[in-house]
Amino acid sequence: MKNVELNHTELIQFLMVADKEQMELFLEEVHPADILDAVHEYEGDPLELLRHLPEQFIASIIDEAEDEEKYELLTLFSKKKQMDIVDEMSSDELVDLLGAINETEQDSIIVNMDAEDAAEVRELLAYEPETAGGIMATEFLALKDQMSVGDTLDYLQKEAPDAETFYYIYVLDDDGVLKGVVSLRDMVKSSFDTKLGDIMKESVISVSVDMDQEAIGRMFEKYGYLIIPVVSLENKMLGIITVDDIMEILIDEDTEDLYRLAGLQESEKVAGGVRESVKSRLPWLIVNLFTAILAAATVSLFEETIAKVVALATFMPIVAGMGGNAGTQTLTLIVRGIALGEVTLENAKKILKKEVGVGVLNGIVLGLAVAILGLIWEGSAVFGLVIGVAMLLNLIMATLAGYFVPLTLKKLNIDPALASAVFVTTVTDVLGFFFFLGLATVFISALI
Amino acid sequence: MKNVELNHTELIQFLMVADKEQMELFLEEVHPADILDAVHEYEGDPLELLRHLPEQFIASIIDEAEDEEKYELLTLFSKKKQMDIVDEMSSDELVDLLGAINETEQDSIIVNMDAEDAAEVRELLAYEPETAGGIMATEFLALKDQMSVGDTLDYLQKEAPDAETFYYIYVLDDDGVLKGVVSLRDMVKSSFDTKLGDIMKESVISVSVDMDQEAIGRMFEKYGYLIIPVVSLENKMLGIITVDDIMEILIDEDTEDLYRLAGLQESEKVAGGVRESVKSRLPWLIVNLFTAILAAATVSLFEETIAKVVALATFMPIVAGMGGNAGTQTLTLIVRGIALGEVTLENAKKILKKEVGVGVLNGIVLGLAVAILGLIWEGSAVFGLVIGVAMLLNLIMATLAGYFVPLTLKKLNIDPALASAVFVTTVTDVLGFFFFLGLATVFISALI
Repeated sequence: MKNVELNHTELIQFLMVADKEQMELFLEEVHPADILDAVHEYEGDPLELLRHLPEQFIASIIDEAEDEEKYELLTLFSKKKQMDIVDEMSSDELVDLLGAINETEQDSIIVNMDAEDAAEVRELLAYEPETAGGIMATEFLALKDQMSVGDTLDYLQKEAPDAETFYYIYVLDDDGVLKGVVSLRDMVKSSFDTKLGDIMKESVISVSVDMDQEAIGRMFEKYGYLIIPVVSLENKMLGIITVDDIMEILIDEDTEDLYRLAGLQESEKVAGGVRESVKSRLPWLIVNLFTAILAAATVSLFEETIAKVVALATFMPIVAGMGGNAGTQTLTLIVRGIALGEVTLENAKKILKKEVGVGVLNGIVLGLAVAILGLIWEGSAVFGLVIGVAMLLNLIMATLAGYFVPLTLKKLNIDPALASAVFVTTVTDVLGFFFFLGLATVFISALI
Repeated sequence: MKNVELNHTELIQFLMVADKEQMELFLEEVHPADILDAVHEYEGDPLELLRHLPEQFIASIIDEAEDEEKYELLTLFSKKKQMDIVDEMSSDELVDLLGAINETEQDSIIVNMDAEDAAEVRELLAYEPETAGGIMATEFLALKDQMSVGDTLDYLQKEAPDAETFYYIYVLDDDGVLKGVVSLRDMVKSSFDTKLGDIMKESVISVSVDMDQEAIGRMFEKYGYLIIPVVSLENKMLGIITVDDIMEILIDEDTEDLYRLAGLQESEKVAGGVRESVKSRLPWLIVNLFTAILAAATVSLFEETIAKVVALATFMPIVAGMGGNAGTQTLTLIVRGIALGEVTLENAKKILKKEVGVGVLNGIVLGLAVAILGLIWEGSAVFGLVIGVAMLLNLIMATLAGYFVPLTLKKLNIDPALASAVFVTTVTDVLGFFFFLGLATVFISALI
C-alpha cells in the first residue's frame, strides 16, 4: 500500500458520521497522531469527532497529545467513559497526564481507579519526572527461568495484550530481581521445550530508577537500544523505557538547550500566545539589561577619551560584535559537547588548550584585519594598533569565557546552557570595551 | 545482572590476551561501542586489541565509529580480512564507510566484492546521502502473501541471520511492490497454516526513496515507529530505515542547527584540533566582521552628534545588546519551529502577529526602563525619551528580523539556521544605532 496521505477534511467528515463497523475497519489503517491533528484543525466541538471512537483508541490519541493537553482531552468525556479510557492507558502515559495537572484534578481521577492501580500510579507519581522512574512504564513481560518456550508462546498469545513491548521477555527471580532477558527472536529459534533460563542473555544493561533521562537518552543513542529495563537500587525490576519515548525526550532536551542559550523558557510554544511569550522572554531581557548596563558603565569610564577621539565610538560595535560571536562559538561547542557527553574530565584540559590556540589564531587574523581597517579609515597607525591589539585580546578572552562559563555552571550543577550566553557576552562586552578604550586612553597623545 | 560497568583498562588487558574461547563467551556480554571506546583510549596499536576478534564483531565496532574513522579501522587489517569484515557489514553500514572516502579508496574495496554485492553498493552510493536512499539498509525480510506462518517461522529460524530486523516481515507481490507487513507478534498469535496475506496490515506507511532524512526523522518521532520501509516511485520496496539510525540522524541535525546558529561548521569536533576549529570558525567571523563594519558605518554617520553628547556612546552597548538578544529569541523560536514542523504555511501569519505583539510589549517595558535609566544617569528627560523610543523601535524591528530572516531563507531553500543570526544581529545593530543616534541628532538642541 502506498503511504496513505490523510486528508484532514475527509478524516473529519468520516469521524463524524461513521458507524461502529466502518470505524473498526478504518482504525486499523489510521494512526492516532493523525486523528489528533484533525482534532486540532477542526473548529467545532472535538467531542463530535471523538465520540464514536473506542476507548483504547482515545487513550492512544491522548498519548500523542502534549502533556498539558491530555487532561483537556480526557475531560471531554463523561465520568464513566473517562474511567474506561484511563483503564486503557499504560502507566507511563497516565503519569504524564497526571503530572501536568494539579492535585485536586489528580485525585478526581485516581479516586475512581481500582485500589491496586491507584497505588501503583501514586508510586510512579512520586518519582522525579525527569528520571528513569518518572518516565518508565510498568507494563512489561516478566517470567521465571524455568518456564519453557512453548508455554511462554502460549502465554504471549493469550495474556499479554497490555505489555508495552512484546519482543523482550524479562526473567526475574522470586524476589523480582532481574536475571536475564529473552528476545522473541531467540524464542522463535528455539525448540518448545527449551527453558527460558537456558536461552536468556544474562548480562542485561539496565538503568537505575533515579538516573537522569538525558543520560538514559545518550545510552539509547550509544548502544542502539530499543528498550531498557529500569531497576531499583536492589536490582529489582520496576519498569521499562522504550526508544519512542526516549526519542521525544532527547528532542525536547535539545529544544531546551537551544531555547536556554537564546534566553527563552523551555515551555514557550512557537504558535502560542503573546502573554506566554512575554512571560518567557522578558525576564531574560531584563537580566540582559543589567549586563548591558555593566558594559555601558565600562564605556562611561572612558567618555573623556571618546570626547577627544570620536572615531572610537564608531569602532565600538566591531569590538563588541566580534567578541560576542567568538565567545558564542566556543560556548555552543562546549554546551553541546557536555550534553552529548563528549566533554569529559579527561579531555577538558586538551580542549582548553585548543580553544586558547583558536582564540590566538583567530585573534591574530582578525586583529590584523581590523588594524588595517583602522589605519585606512582613520589614517592613523596608532589607531590601527589600538583596535588590532584590543581585538586580539578580546578574542582570547572570548574563547576563555566560552569555555569556563558553561563548565563552571556544570560544576555547580546548573544546566550549562542556562544563562551561559548572557555571562559570556557580558565578559566580551565589558573586557572588549575595556581593552579598546583603555588602550586608546594610554595612547591618547598619539591619537589626537 | 547488574548494569555491567566496563572498566576500560581491564577491557584492554582482556582483549590483548584472551584466547578464542574466552573471547566468544565474553563477546556475548559486551557492546561493540564499549570496545570502540577502549580502542580510543588505548595509546598503542589498535590492532593489538582487535586482532583476536571475529570479523562480525569488528564490523559492529566499525559501525559504531564516526563515518570518517570507519575506513581507518578497516584498513588496520590485511586485505583478506578486510574483505571478510566487509562481508559481515550491512549495506547501510558499508555505504556510510564508502561515502566518507575517495573514489580510489572506494574502488579498492568494491573491486574485491562479489559482482552482485558490488552492483548493489554502487546503486546505494548513487543516492543522495541525506535522503531515504542514502541511509536505508537493503537487508529486510520480504515474502509472498501465500506463504504460511509455519513456513515463515521455519524460514526465519534457518535463513534470516542477515536481516536488520527480525520483527517485521514485508509482503511483496511478484513485481516487488510492497503490499503489506506482518509483525512477528501477529505471527506468534496465529495458527501455523494461516497465510501471511490474511494477517498482514495492508496500510503500510512507507517513505519515498528521495525523501529528506530530517523529514523522515520527524515521521518516526510523530508516529513512534521502530522501522519504516523505503519504496521507489513505482512503490517497489527498496530497503528499510530503523529507529536507531534515525535517532542518530535527528541528534546530528539538531547539532547542525545549533552550530549553524552560532557560526560553526557542522563538522567541527569539540575535541578536535586547532586547525580544523580555525577553519570552521574564521569564515563566519570574517562574515561577521563585514556586518560589524556596516554597524560601524552607521555610527560614523553620527560622529558629529556623539562629539556633542558623548554619553550617547555609553548607551550604545545597551541599544545593540538588547536588540540582538530580542532578535535571537524570535529567531531561535522560528528556526526550531521550522525544524520540528511546527511553523507551517497556515500558522505563519498568526505567529507573525504574535511576534509583533511580543516586540511591542517587551519594547514598552524595556523602553520605559531605559528611559528612566537615561533620565537618572544623564539627568535629562529628552535623553531618556530618545533612548526609550529607540529601544521600543529596535525591539519591534528585532522581532520582525527574527521572524522574516529564517522564513525567507527557508523559501529560498537555504537552511534557515545558516547565517540567520548574522543577518538578524546586523539588522538590529544597524537599525538600533540608526534609531538611537538619529533621534539624538533630531533632538540635539535639547540634549546639549
